[in-house]
Order: sequence, then structure tokens, then C-alpha cells
Amino acid sequence: MDIQTIAAQAKTAAIAMAGLGTDIKNQALAEIAAALESRQADIVAANQSDLDRSEKENLAPPLLKRLKFDAVKIDEACAGLRSMIQLPDPVGRTLDAMEVDDGLELFRVSCPIGLIGVIFESRPDALVQIACLCLKSGNGVLLKGGREAMATNRLLADIIHRAGIAAGIPDGWLGLLETRDDVADMLQLDEFIDLIIPRGSNAFVKHIMDNTTIPVMGHADGICHVYIDRGADLDMAERIVVDSKTQYVAVCNAAETLLVHRAVAEAFLPRIKTALEKKGVEIRGCHRTVGIIDVMPASEEDWRTEYLDYILSIRVVDSLVAAVDHINAFGSGHTDVIVSPDRQRGIRFMNTVDSADVFLNCSSRFCDGFRFGLGAEVGISTNKTHARGPVGLEGLVIYQWRMIGHGQIVADYTGPEARRFTHRKLDKSFG
Amino acid sequence: MDIQTIAAQAKTAAIAMAGLGTDIKNQALAEIAAALESRQADIVAANQSDLDRSEKENLAPPLLKRLKFDAVKIDEACAGLRSMIQLPDPVGRTLDAMEVDDGLELFRVSCPIGLIGVIFESRPDALVQIACLCLKSGNGVLLKGGREAMATNRLLADIIHRAGIAAGIPDGWLGLLETRDDVADMLQLDEFIDLIIPRGSNAFVKHIMDNTTIPVMGHADGICHVYIDRGADLDMAERIVVDSKTQYVAVCNAAETLLVHRAVAEAFLPRIKTALEKKGVEIRGCHRTVGIIDVMPASEEDWRTEYLDYILSIRVVDSLVAAVDHINAFGSGHTDVIVSPDRQRGIRFMNTVDSADVFLNCSSRFCDGFRFGLGAEVGISTNKTHARGPVGLEGLVIYQWRMIGHGQIVADYTGPEARRFTHRKLDKSFG
Repeated sequence: MDIQTIAAQAKTAAIAMAGLGTDIKNQALAEIAAALESRQADIVAANQSDLDRSEKENLAPPLLKRLKFDAVKIDEACAGLRSMIQLPDPVGRTLDAMEVDDGLELFRVSCPIGLIGVIFESRPDALVQIACLCLKSGNGVLLKGGREAMATNRLLADIIHRAGIAAGIPDGWLGLLETRDDVADMLQLDEFIDLIIPRGSNAFVKHIMDNTTIPVMGHADGICHVYIDRGADLDMAERIVVDSKTQYVAVCNAAETLLVHRAVAEAFLPRIKTALEKKGVEIRGCHRTVGIIDVMPASEEDWRTEYLDYILSIRVVDSLVAAVDHINAFGSGHTDVIVSPDRQRGIRFMNTVDSADVFLNCSSRFCDGFRFGLGAEVGISTNKTHARGPVGLEGLVIYQWRMIGHGQIVADYTGPEARRFTHRKLDKSFG
Repeated sequence: MDIQTIAAQAKTAAIAMAGLGTDIKNQALAEIAAALESRQADIVAANQSDLDRSEKENLAPPLLKRLKFDAVKIDEACAGLRSMIQLPDPVGRTLDAMEVDDGLELFRVSCPIGLIGVIFESRPDALVQIACLCLKSGNGVLLKGGREAMATNRLLADIIHRAGIAAGIPDGWLGLLETRDDVADMLQLDEFIDLIIPRGSNAFVKHIMDNTTIPVMGHADGICHVYIDRGADLDMAERIVVDSKTQYVAVCNAAETLLVHRAVAEAFLPRIKTALEKKGVEIRGCHRTVGIIDVMPASEEDWRTEYLDYILSIRVVDSLVAAVDHINAFGSGHTDVIVSPDRQRGIRFMNTVDSADVFLNCSSRFCDGFRFGLGAEVGISTNKTHARGPVGLEGLVIYQWRMIGHGQIVADYTGPEARRFTHRKLDKSFG
């Protein structure tokens, strides 16, 4: 089948999925978990063939590690699916209800977006999680994974697609794209695809955004800041900086720049230098930082860099406002932290830092769908429309306006003898 | 000032506007209304110069009518602003609150999008309404109006900008762009502009979408349907069809295609022909329609056409499913109506028609921000992300995740002795 046909079929399936009940969708998730378990040996064998080929092709060891999908990972994926069954259905919720006039009621009801195109990195567990998030939220899905995981992805997509159909999801609800050309074609399918979610490097996400008119939900860089305010508890500050920087350096919510209020710089910089160097972190400081501790000087380029490594830039600032200005100028709108004893100053920081996630007195590493209690996540968005920050099921739905009348026409509400609208909030659900 | 400078200044202002209280924003709206009233004579004079020039340049009479901004329209605009003051502030609402762990709380709080770029048609009242919706929702705004309204727009923008500043809105919060080149430049300013709202022809909106990576909120066509189900009350059906088609033909929520269940076609088609022809509507029918009433035959092109005129296409269908399939194939995802005595069939229609607005037993013309009780509207969106259908203040906000802790770090929540999250819903507001 060509990609146009796959997409058209998935779009048709998606429209039917909008009307599916919660039971059928949860039954499908249960069938998928059971099928993955019963086909475990086949999946491991397919994955082994991907691993063998990729090793021969000299894929880097960290990527090989991500590619691996063994019995333990399959069990984890199935446990994830079973907890997804417990999550409330995001579709069909009445978000607003209003009496527009006597016998004329308006409801805003959540519904699936339609057909989601997902382009993901090599991890096969991402395929399972994303396909199932789309199913639970009533969306059709087109998946494009990495070439290195081809055999694993093909088998997983087939198992998941069939198990869904067995539970009553329409044939064609999941489509797998396999070649690089497929991605270019996918970006043109604005007639069928309602949203594209690219997961991968910043350059890759940017490339997708530049080459499609379909809405894209993604994040660019994760240049996260920790700002130590005047009067901060320096023990707490040290703990939060070390965790934000070093708990896992290769992720988007790790801190890249530390901002320190001048009132605490003399006291804080020497001890944070000791603590970070113990973890192997290289420090690059502004000229005021360099005047207090013996570290490499930072260039302006450092403020714009997502290191994703054991490197931290430090800048001394004169005020909370200066910290906020630095973050809004050089940050990426992802996650920024203030450590301050003053809750009101914390709120000022949150009100004026233009980022998806703003934290007071805790680590930037908390920015994550699981830690936020969303269940699974499709990714972290730095968009400023639709969904922002960690995105769970709610980012995969939109709403529809549903009005129920008894023959009302607009002509009766215009002119000198116009009926008046009542516009009274109702406390009831659609249905 | 060049557009880059104007945009940078508006972006800076927008960030400060995110933290403004409701009182200041409402005070600004009151100041704007007062200023428009006190400068009425100047505004009418500026508008007259636009009208005179445009008349000389042979602007079409309907466009001249839209361009006119006289004392009556100024009063209406001011009344609109005063009712906007009464609307609840969309910013700073706590959408979710959760205890993540003891002493670690997470809030999802609504906030402005940032800087909105609006490109609007000649109507000067649109400038007033859009600028003030942006202000009320805490967003900076760049406005580009039609060349024909240049003098009016320049004066209105100046009055509104200054009145806002007098109430405490930051300087530069509103920027006016004037040339066609400015639009092309604006589409490249993804560093500053967070959302573009184009108002104008379909071709124009499509052009904007094709030429920017900034998210665009707009609607394409309004190909709206009315479907008369089997067993429908034919008096009601006639009333709704006539209103949906003829109450105002030149607008996006007017009906363009009538679908009729075969069980009522024989009875309904002759009477609707009489009723519509009385209003001067030309009918184009499918071959089954042509077999029942004497009308011109429709081509497939008719199903895809937004007439915006006294023309209606009619198709006889075999079932509710066939009606839904027609709508999903040829509709534009705007507003579609079913007339049916059976509420369950109405719900099936709503569940499977993939449009922003789906109505049972009332006219398609109800799709409108004012009639929906949203107060003012920035437009009607056929996007399937962010905001859909009539968009009021809520479409101009997004949310921010705000976490407040007491020094918590992620390292404590990992490994064999990991602390567990509590993830308990809280019934409290941020602050």
C-alpha cells in the first residue's frame, strides 16, 4: 500500500474511533498487552535481528542500548498499558454546558483530534506507548520509526494493530511508515493528518516544522535555568542545583545555566563549585563569577547552549528582574527554577518567566509526565498553543461544540422584536 | 521604526502583561472606551478621508460600507468594550492542582500566549475588538489592517495604544503594521510572534499558512450542511433550512448543501423548493433530486463549493451514515446540522461528523461567538488543535505548569529506596 492509501484508511478509521466507547478502547489495550506477552519470543527474536544488523553497521553503543527490547522491557511496556487502562477516558467529557435560550442547549465536548502522525527515535517502547496513547484518546495514528528498529517496529505495529481490531477498533487505525521518503510524503498529507509529533533532535524537529503546514507539537531546545535568589537557603540551593544539573545530564529538563543573585554569590559560588566538581561538572562563569571562583570564562554563546553534558554556565545577576530577563532572552521556554525563601518573589518569577514549566524550590528534573501524574506522555511541548509542558492524553484531544434545539432559527433573534439569549451556565453533561 | 523593532518591543511588553492584574486591564479597557468617545470627531474625520480616497479608487460599495466607521459604530464599539470589562479574566485561573508529594504542589495555571499577530480586513471595528481582546487576555498585539482604512487604523491604533499605557499597560504593547511587505516580514518573525490570526478570504488564509512556521489560527471554507433525517418534522426542517441558507448568505456559517434522507425526499423536496425559490435561492440537485423536483443538476464540484450566495446544492442520501460520509468527504469541518426527531440518531451524527460545530434541530447560523455566549470573538477556527469553532478570550490563552516545593530533588524519587509520589488532586488555587 502506498502512504496515501494508508493515510486515507487511517483517517476513515479515526473518524469512526471518535464514537467508540471507553470499554472498547480499554478492551483493546488489554488485548494488546496480552498479545505482546504471548508473542514475547518473536518480538525478542525480531529485535535481536535489528541489534545484530545495527551492530554490524557500527551503531553507537548508547543507541544500541535504546534499540534493545527484551523480556524485561516488554513486561514494563505491558505494565504501562495496564495502568493506561486505569486513566480516565479523555474523550466525551463535557467541558462547558450552557442554556442559550429556553430549549436550546450548547455543550463543549472533548473529542479526538483525528489522525496523528508520529515520528520517533529508535526506542521500540516509544512505539508501543505512543500507539496506545493515540488509541486511548480515540485517534488514528501513523508511525514512522528509525530504520535500525525496522524488524521490531514492523512486528510490534502488526501485533498492536491486529489486537486493536480484535477488540473492535476499525481496520487500518494504525499505519506504519518505513522509509525516509515516507516522512517527506507524510508532511504533505494535510488532507488526512491533523497533528504531527516529531520526537528527535532539535534540528530534526525544526526541519519538520519548516516543511509542513500541518500543526506540529514538539519542543526545540531545553535550555533550563536555576536561579538562586537573595536570602536563599544555600543548602537547599546546592541540593537543587546538583540534582538539576547532574541527576541525568542527557535530557531536556537538565539545567544548563545557573543564575545567582549578587547578594549570595560570594557565599554560594565556592561551595557549588566544590559540589559540582565532585560530580565531574565543568563550570563556565561570567566575569563576576570568574572574580569569585577560579573557573573558565563563559562566552555569550554559552548562554544559548544546551550542553546535555557535564557542563554548567554561571552568571551573577543584580536582581530577580535581571534573572528573568536573562531567562526570557536566552532560555528555550522549557523549565526554569527559582530558589527563594520568599513565596511572593517566587510568584513574580513565575508570572514573568515565559516558559512552559516554572518551579519554586524544587529541581528542574521534575518536569516529566510521569512525575506530573499524567500517566504516560507523548512528549514535552514548548509550543505556546494547544498543549504545553509534559503532554499526556489531554494533548491528544480537542473539543467540539454541540448544540441541541427544537427548531430554533437565527431570524427570531434579530431585528426589533428579537428574542433575547439567556446564556445561563448549566450543570449537566452532554448526552 | 522597522517591524523587527516594533515586534521586539511588543514581545517585551507582552511578557510584562502576563503579570498584570485584572483591575489594570479592565481600567485600560475603560480608558480606551472613554478615549474613543472623546476623540469621536477626529475618528470620523480620519475615516471620511479613507472613504473619500477609496471612493475615488472605485472600491466596491459593500467594501465601502464595511470601511465606514461613524458615530453609531463608535458607540457600538464602546458598548462592546464595556461588556468586555464584565467578562471574567481568562488569565491566572487554576486549571488543575495536585499534590505530587508531601510539600510538593503542582498547578496548571492559564496564562497569555504572548504576542499575537492579527491580519484583518477593512472593518475598523475589527481593529478595536481584536486589540481589546488581546489586552484583556494579557497578550501583546501586532495589527495589520487594509490599506483602504489606513488613516482610520492609524488613529485608532494610536488612541488605543496611548489609553492602554495611561492605565499601566507597558509602552509598545500594540504595534501597527501598514504595508504589504510588513505582512511578509511578519510571517518570518517566529522569534517574537507566538500566534497569527488571519482574517480574510480562504485563499488569503491558505497563503498565510503556507508561508510561516508560526502557528496560525484560522478557518478555511465554511461548507456547512443541513441533513434532514428520516421521520423529521418537515415544518421544522423547512424553517431550519431556510434560515441556515438565507438568513445571511455571505457568511461562513450559512448552509451550502442540503442532504435529505430518501424516506422524506418525496415529501420534503417540493415544499423546500417552493420555500427557497420564494427567497430567490437557485437549487442544484443530485440525479435523485432532479427525479423529484425540477431543478438544475449538480456536479461533483457543487459539493465542494462555498457559494456565499443564493445557491443551494441538494443530495438525497440512503441513510444517516451516508449523510455523515458525504459531510466528512466534502465538508470543511465548520458547522453541520441534523434535523431528526430521534435524539440518539442526533448523537450518532455528532459523534461521527468531524466538524467544529455539530447541531441537532437548530440553524447553522447559531455558530457565532456572541450567540454562543462567549462575548466578543476573534474569529471561527476550523483548526483541530488549540481552539475550535467560535474563539473568544479562551483561545488567546494557554497554560503554564507551576510547581512549588521545599527543596525536593528527583534523585530522592529514583533507585531502590525511591520515595513514592502521592499524585493527589487538590481543591485549591495557585497563589
